[in-house]
Amino acid sequence: MLKHYQIDDLIRRALEEDIGTGDVTTNSTVSADRIIRGRLIAKEQGVICGLPIFRRVFELLDSGIELNCHVQEGDSVPQGAVVAEISGPAREILTGERVALNFLQHLSGIASGTHEAVIRIAGSKAAIVDTRKTTPGLRTLEKYAVRIGGGANHRFNLSDGILIKDNHIRAAGGITQAVAAARQNAPHTLKIEVEAETMDQVEEAIACKADIIMLDNMTAEEMKTAVRFIDGRAIVEASGNMGEKDLKEVADTGVDLISIGALTHSVRALDISLRFED
Amino acid sequence: MLKHYQIDDLIRRALEEDIGTGDVTTNSTVSADRIIRGRLIAKEQGVICGLPIFRRVFELLDSGIELNCHVQEGDSVPQGAVVAEISGPAREILTGERVALNFLQHLSGIASGTHEAVIRIAGSKAAIVDTRKTTPGLRTLEKYAVRIGGGANHRFNLSDGILIKDNHIRAAGGITQAVAAARQNAPHTLKIEVEAETMDQVEEAIACKADIIMLDNMTAEEMKTAVRFIDGRAIVEASGNMGEKDLKEVADTGVDLISIGALTHSVRALDISLRFED
Amino acid sequence: MLKHYQIDDLIRRALEEDIGTGDVTTNSTVSADRIIRGRLIAKEQGVICGLPIFRRVFELLDSGIELNCHVQEGDSVPQGAVVAEISGPAREILTGERVALNFLQHLSGIASGTHEAVIRIAGSKAAIVDTRKTTPGLRTLEKYAVRIGGGANHRFNLSDGILIKDNHIRAAGGITQAVAAARQNAPHTLKIEVEAETMDQVEEAIACKADIIMLDNMTAEEMKTAVRFIDGRAIVEASGNMGEKDLKEVADTGVDLISIGALTHSVRALDISLRFED
Amino acid sequence: MLKHYQIDDLIRRALEEDIGTGDVTTNSTVSADRIIRGRLIAKEQGVICGLPIFRRVFELLDSGIELNCHVQEGDSVPQGAVVAEISGPAREILTGERVALNFLQHLSGIASGTHEAVIRIAGSKAAIVDTRKTTPGLRTLEKYAVRIGGGANHRFNLSDGILIKDNHIRAAGGITQAVAAARQNAPHTLKIEVEAETMDQVEEAIACKADIIMLDNMTAEEMKTAVRFIDGRAIVEASGNMGEKDLKEVADTGVDLISIGALTHSVRALDISLRFED
Amino acid sequence: MLKHYQIDDLIRRALEEDIGTGDVTTNSTVSADRIIRGRLIAKEQGVICGLPIFRRVFELLDSGIELNCHVQEGDSVPQGAVVAEISGPAREILTGERVALNFLQHLSGIASGTHEAVIRIAGSKAAIVDTRKTTPGLRTLEKYAVRIGGGANHRFNLSDGILIKDNHIRAAGGITQAVAAARQNAPHTLKIEVEAETMDQVEEAIACKADIIMLDNMTAEEMKTAVRFIDGRAIVEASGNMGEKDLKEVADTGVDLISIGALTHSVRALDISLRFED
Amino acid sequence: MLKHYQIDDLIRRALEEDIGTGDVTTNSTVSADRIIRGRLIAKEQGVICGLPIFRRVFELLDSGIELNCHVQEGDSVPQGAVVAEISGPAREILTGERVALNFLQHLSGIASGTHEAVIRIAGSKAAIVDTRKTTPGLRTLEKYAVRIGGGANHRFNLSDGILIKDNHIRAAGGITQAVAAARQNAPHTLKIEVEAETMDQVEEAIACKADIIMLDNMTAEEMKTAVRFIDGRAIVEASGNMGEKDLKEVADTGVDLISIGALTHSVRALDISLRFED
Repeated sequence: MLKHYQIDDLIRRALEEDIGTGDVTTNSTVSADRIIRGRLIAKEQGVICGLPIFRRVFELLDSGIELNCHVQEGDSVPQGAVVAEISGPAREILTGERVALNFLQHLSGIASGTHEAVIRIAGSKAAIVDTRKTTPGLRTLEKYAVRIGGGANHRFNLSDGILIKDNHIRAAGGITQAVAAARQNAPHTLKIEVEAETMDQVEEAIACKADIIMLDNMTAEEMKTAVRFIDGRAIVEASGNMGEKDLKEVADTGVDLISIGALTHSVRALDISLRFED
Repeated sequence: MLKHYQIDDLIRRALEEDIGTGDVTTNSTVSADRIIRGRLIAKEQGVICGLPIFRRVFELLDSGIELNCHVQEGDSVPQGAVVAEISGPAREILTGERVALNFLQHLSGIASGTHEAVIRIAGSKAAIVDTRKTTPGLRTLEKYAVRIGGGANHRFNLSDGILIKDNHIRAAGGITQAVAAARQNAPHTLKIEVEAETMDQVEEAIACKADIIMLDNMTAEEMKTAVRFIDGRAIVEASGNMGEKDLKEVADTGVDLISIGALTHSVRALDISLRFED
Repeated sequence: MLKHYQIDDLIRRALEEDIGTGDVTTNSTVSADRIIRGRLIAKEQGVICGLPIFRRVFELLDSGIELNCHVQEGDSVPQGAVVAEISGPAREILTGERVALNFLQHLSGIASGTHEAVIRIAGSKAAIVDTRKTTPGLRTLEKYAVRIGGGANHRFNLSDGILIKDNHIRAAGGITQAVAAARQNAPHTLKIEVEAETMDQVEEAIACKADIIMLDNMTAEEMKTAVRFIDGRAIVEASGNMGEKDLKEVADTGVDLISIGALTHSVRALDISLRFED
Repeated sequence: MLKHYQIDDLIRRALEEDIGTGDVTTNSTVSADRIIRGRLIAKEQGVICGLPIFRRVFELLDSGIELNCHVQEGDSVPQGAVVAEISGPAREILTGERVALNFLQHLSGIASGTHEAVIRIAGSKAAIVDTRKTTPGLRTLEKYAVRIGGGANHRFNLSDGILIKDNHIRAAGGITQAVAAARQNAPHTLKIEVEAETMDQVEEAIACKADIIMLDNMTAEEMKTAVRFIDGRAIVEASGNMGEKDLKEVADTGVDLISIGALTHSVRALDISLRFED
Repeated sequence: MLKHYQIDDLIRRALEEDIGTGDVTTNSTVSADRIIRGRLIAKEQGVICGLPIFRRVFELLDSGIELNCHVQEGDSVPQGAVVAEISGPAREILTGERVALNFLQHLSGIASGTHEAVIRIAGSKAAIVDTRKTTPGLRTLEKYAVRIGGGANHRFNLSDGILIKDNHIRAAGGITQAVAAARQNAPHTLKIEVEAETMDQVEEAIACKADIIMLDNMTAEEMKTAVRFIDGRAIVEASGNMGEKDLKEVADTGVDLISIGALTHSVRALDISLRFED
Repeated sequence: MLKHYQIDDLIRRALEEDIGTGDVTTNSTVSADRIIRGRLIAKEQGVICGLPIFRRVFELLDSGIELNCHVQEGDSVPQGAVVAEISGPAREILTGERVALNFLQHLSGIASGTHEAVIRIAGSKAAIVDTRKTTPGLRTLEKYAVRIGGGANHRFNLSDGILIKDNHIRAAGGITQAVAAARQNAPHTLKIEVEAETMDQVEEAIACKADIIMLDNMTAEEMKTAVRFIDGRAIVEASGNMGEKDLKEVADTGVDLISIGALTHSVRALDISLRFED
C-alpha cells in the first residue's frame, strides 16, 4: 500500500540523519565480508506496523540483505514473538538497524494504540479516527498506521475536508453563513463538517444541512441528546481530549466517529528489537 | 540556536503536508482582510520548547503576523499560563495554526519529559542523556528539546561517536580486539565507548583503556560495583529501559550519565492551544 | 492567494530552465548599470491572470525591479490595454522577461478561456469546472487560473474527491457495491460521485444515495431526463468533450456543473508582451 | 533519447501532484489483487509522442505493469488506432492513468501540430523551429516533441544561443556595436543571431557578419527581398506570429527557418484514451 | 554577476557539510552575545575572486554580520593585503569561517592561475580559455573565476557547443560526414568545432567550412603552418596539455584561443585567512 | 565503501551540469546503435581512486555499459597502466566520459598526493591526516580519497570533533576555561583537542587534561620539546602549512599526526584518459 516513490525520500533523509558521514564503529570493527543473521523480536505484545518500510531501509542500503517476515503487516503478536528473520552483510545490517527500528517501533506504537481504542469500543457502531495532530513530516505514515491498527482516517490536510470551527463561524457571522459560504466557494466534492459546542449550534448546523457535525467537548449525556436530535441527518463525530475519556461510554452515545489526537501526538513506541546470533 | 537554514526545509515540508492544495475551509469562510488576535495557552504545566519554530512557521506564511512571547524558550510554566500573543491576518494564522502547534507541542513534550527526569535525580552528579531512538527526520529538533529540558546529548549519529556493542565485539573477536580496531581505524577525535553487560566486560574495557563504559541492563547493585571498580578511569553510562527504572536509585550508584530512549521514542505532547478573541 | 512557499520552487526551476548558465546575449551587449523601463501590453482582449507570479519572477532575480500594475488580477482587458509598467536594471529585466511572460500568457489563456465558457452559460445556474487533465507540474496554478476566470474547481487530485468510474464499478461488481465500498473505506469527509452513462445507472446511483452524479457523454435530451429524475437528490455534473459542445444547451438541461478538460489540456496563450521605451 | 535521470523527477512530481495522499476511490473499490487489461486508443489522427514517458510513469508505480506498444514514437496514426496494450495490477494502472495520459496527450499534441506545419511547407527547403515560449518546467520535453513532429530546435535557453534583439541593439548603441560586443564577450562557440525589422537592419547585420538573421514581422514580399540580399551570407529565420501566417507563402520566400511560438505556447492535446476490457 | 538563486543551494550544501549537527566547540566555549572583529588577509599575492560568495555565506548564517571589502572582485593584491574587514556575532562568524574561506581560496586560486597564464601571453592576440575539466558541482563558479582572472570561457557543457572529436569523426565516417551530420541535426545556433591532429584533418575541416578548428597536441611549428593555412577562415584553438607548455610560444603561432584544462582540474588554493583582533 | 545513496545525487548533479539539455555533438554524429570499446589509461604513475564512482556514472546513464577493472581501488599503478576496459553504446559512453573522468582524476590526484606524503614519512609512527579545507560539496569523497591514499581522517565537520583554537581560548578566557566549558557543554563522546602555539600553552593544555594537542606552526625543534613534555599524556598533532614542510623532519619529532590542508585544497588531477579502439 505504501509505494516506493512515497517513502524512499523519507527513508533516505532518515539514513542521512543517522549515518552522518559513516558508521565509524562498525566500519572499524567489523570486516566487510562478515555475514550476520538475526531475529526481529516483539518484546511486548502489540500490533506490528511498518514492515514494508523496515524492509525498504535495508534494500536501500544493500541489495544482499534478506528479510523473511513471520507475521503480516497489522498482525497482533504476543510478547516474545519472532516478527522476522534477517540475514546478510553485517556492516550494512548494523548500520541500518536503528533507522529501520525507529520507523517500525513508532508505527507499531500508533497501530497498537489505535487497536486498543478500537477494542475498547467493540460492539458499538462507532469508528476510531485520527486528527491532524501528527508528527511533522510523517503524516502519511502515521495515518497509514492508524488504518493498520483498525482505525479510519479523518481528513489528511486542509484541502481534502471542510471543517468549520469556531473561528470560521465567528468570521462568517454565524454557522448558517459559514456553511453557505463553504457551499458556495469550496470544492463541491467535499462534505461540510461543522464543529458544535452546544445544542443550539447542533440545531443550526442541521438546519443548514451540514453533512457532518463534530460534537466538541460535550458530556456523554449531551452527546446522547445531540445524536437523538440529529437522527441520521448528518454523520456525528465526538471530539475533545478523547484520549482521556471513557471511550466505551462515548461510543454508546450513538456517535459515528470518535476522533483522538493522542493516537498520533502522544505515541508510545512498541518495544521491538533485533537479536543477532552468536 | 536553531538557524533558519536548519529548520526552513522541515517547516516547508510540514506546511505542504498540512495545507495540501489550500485551506478550503478558511479560504471560503474568512475574508482576506480579516485580522485576528489570539493567545497561546499552556493547558497543563510543563517546559515550553519550540518557540523559534512556532514563530518561523508564521513568518514563512505571512510577514504581517506578529508574535509576542511572554515566556522564554525553556521556561517552566504553570497550567493556564499565557505563552504568547499572536495577531495578524486571520487566514494565514488559521491556516498555519496546526503545523505551528504540532511542532511546539511535540518539542515541549520532550523538554517537559526530560525536565521531569532531571528533577528526579536532582542532587546527584549524573546527567540525563538521549539516544538515537528519535523520530525519523526530527533528530536535530528532538535533541535540541532534550537540551532545553535540562538534559545532555549523546552522539547525534553513527559518525560522531564510537559505541562498541555486542555485535561489534563478537565480530572483532573480543572487547580488547574491538577497542584496538577502533583506535586504529576510527577518527582520533572520537572517544571510544564500550557496552558492558557483565563485570568481566567492564574489567576488560578498563584494561584496554576505553574512554566511556555503558553499563547495559545492570541492577543498581551491579552498577555500584562497576562504578567502584572503574573509579574515575572512564565515564560511566547507565542504559537499558531507563524510562521504566527508578532514576534516583540509578543516579545514586554514581554513574555519570543515564541514557533514556523514551525521552524521544515515546513522547507525550504538551497540551498547548491557541485561543482567539471574539 | 498564491503564497511564496507554493510558487518559488516552480519559478526557480523555470528560471534555471530558461537561463541555463547565463544570458550570454544580454550580459555581453548590455552594461550592468543600464536602467530600462517598459510597459506590459495585452495584444488581444482577455482576462489577465498570473500577475503575482509575474511580479515574483522579477523579485527573485533582482530586488531593484519595480512593477506597477494598472489592472487587477482577474480583470478583463481590451486589446491594447497597458497591464503594468516595469522599470529597473536592464540586464535582469531582459533576462527574466520570457519566464515571466510564459507564466502570465499561459495562465491568462486559461482564465480567458474559462471566462468565455462562463459567459456562454450566463443566466443558467450551472458552474463551469475543471478536471485533472492539467499540464504536469502546473496543476495548482492552472486550477487557480480557472477560478480567476470565473470557474470552480473539481477535485485537485485522487485524494480529495471520490469519483467512481466504469472500471471501479466493474471491479466492485456494480454501482451499489462500489458506493458501499467507498462509503465503508474512503474518508468520511468526501462526497461520493458516480459516473453514469445510462438512465439505469443514474437510477442505481440515486438509489444508493450517491452525492454527485456525473452524466458522461449524454445528449442534452438525456441530461434533461436525468436531471428531472434526480430532482435535487444529488449534485449533477455534465461531462464528456464539453469543450466541443453547445454549452448553453448543456446548461439549460438543469445540470449543476459542466466540467471541461479543454480548459487546461488545450490552452491558447493570451498574447501579452513587454514593450520597452527607447 | 529521453534518459531516466532527465524525466524521473518530473514524473515523480506529477504523480505526487495527482495522487496526493492516495487514490481513495480506487483503493476503496478495487481489490489489491485485481488484474486489468486495456488498450490505448488514438481517438483522432495525429503523431504519437511521449511513449517512453507513458511507460516510465507505470514503471515508477509498479514493476508488474506490462506495456506493449503497437506503434513507434513519432508514428502518424489514424483515428481509432490502437497505440499500445497495457496489463497489470488494476489499482496501480487506474491510479497512474491520468498522469500518463496527461504527458502523452500534451506531447502528442505538440508533435501533431508541428507535423502539420512541416507538411504545409513540404517541398521547400525551410525548417520549422520552436521558440522559448514553452510551458514552465517542460521545455526539454516540449522541444523533444517538436523534434519528434519533424521540426528542429532553436536555442534551448539564454545560454546556448546569442539572439540580439531590439533592446540589446538599443543598449549597445546599434547593431554593429551589439554584434561586436557579443563577438568580444560571449562564448566563441555560439553563432550570433540578429533580429531585423527593416532592410536597413538586415544590411547592417550582414555588414558586421552576423551568422543568423531573424526577419521579424516582415511581409512575404519583404522577406523575399531580404533573402535575395542576404544571398547565403547568413542563415535566415522568419519570425513573428507565424502560427497565424500562411506558412507555405513564408517558406517560398526562401528563408531557412520558420520559428513558431504557438507550437508550444498554444497546444491542443491529442485525444488519446485508455479503454479497459470488461 | 552571480545571483542568489544560482549560489544559495551550493552554499547551503557546503554549510550542512561543514557544520553537521552544530559547531560543538564554538557553542560550548563562546557566549552567544560575544562580538568579534577580524580582517581577511591575503597571505600571498594573487587575484581575489569569490567575494560575493564569501559575503553570502555569512548572510545565510546571520543577518547581523557586516563585511566591508577593501578590494574589488578581480583585483590583484600583494602579499599581506587586507581584503576585507568583518564584524558581528562571534559564534556565527567562527562557524561560517571555513566554508567561506574554502570557496574564496579555491576561486581565487583559479583566478590567480588564469591571470598568470594571461600575463604570460600578453601582447599576443590569443585568449586563454577553460575546458570541461572542472570540479563536479562547481562548474558555474569555476568558469566565473576564469573570467575574473582574465580568461574566456569555452562551452559550458555538451549542449552549448559542438566539438567534433576523433570518436565522432570515426563514428560518422570522416570529418566531412561528421560536420555535415552536425550541420543537419544539431541546433543551428551553435558553431561547429572540429578537433584536428594533422594538417590533412585541418584541410578537410576547412574544406567543409568548420567554424572553429582545435589543433590537438601539435608542436608550435605545426600550429604555425595550420594557422597560415587556415588564414582567418576559422577560429583556431590550441589544445593538449597546455598547462605544461610554453604559452608564449603557443600564442606566437597566431592561434586565437589556448585552452588549458589545468586552470580548473589542478587548482592551487590562494592562501587567504581571517585574523581576529584580541 | 561508498554507497549509492551517498553518491547518486552528486553524480546526477554533475551529469546535469555537464550534459545540459543534451550532447548535441554526439547525438548528431553518432548513430544510436553504435557500440564502442575503450581502455582507461593512466598517463602518469599514481594511486587510482574513484573507480566505484566512475562505474556508477555510466550505470546511471545506461544499464548496457560494461566496465572491467584491471586494478583495485587504491592500487599504485605505473605510467601507461590499463586501469579498466569499457564497452557499450557509443552515445552514452561518449556523453558520460568527461564527468566520469573528472571524478576519477580528482580523487586519484588526492590519493596520489596523500600516498606521496605517507611514503615520505615511512618508518615513523606518525599518520598523515586531512583537514576541513576541502572543495565545497565534495568532502565525503575527498576524505575517502585521503583514506585510499593511506592517510587518516581528522574530524569530518564541526560536530564530530572539538578543536579549541585561539579565538575560542580568547572568548572563554584561557585554555583552562575553554577546556572546562567544552567538557561541560559539548557531547561527552568527543575528545577535546587544543591548539597550542607555545610551550606555555602546551603545558596548560596538558594540565587541564586535553585529549589531543595541536602544535601550530612550531619549528621541528619546538615540536620535539613539546612531544617530550607531553610524553604520551595526549595525542600530538603537527599543523601549519605542512604541505610546504620537510615531512620527514616533522615526523621524526615524534608527533602522532601530521595534518596537511594541501592534500585537499590544492589538488593536482592525475592524468587518466579513455582511449577508444578504431
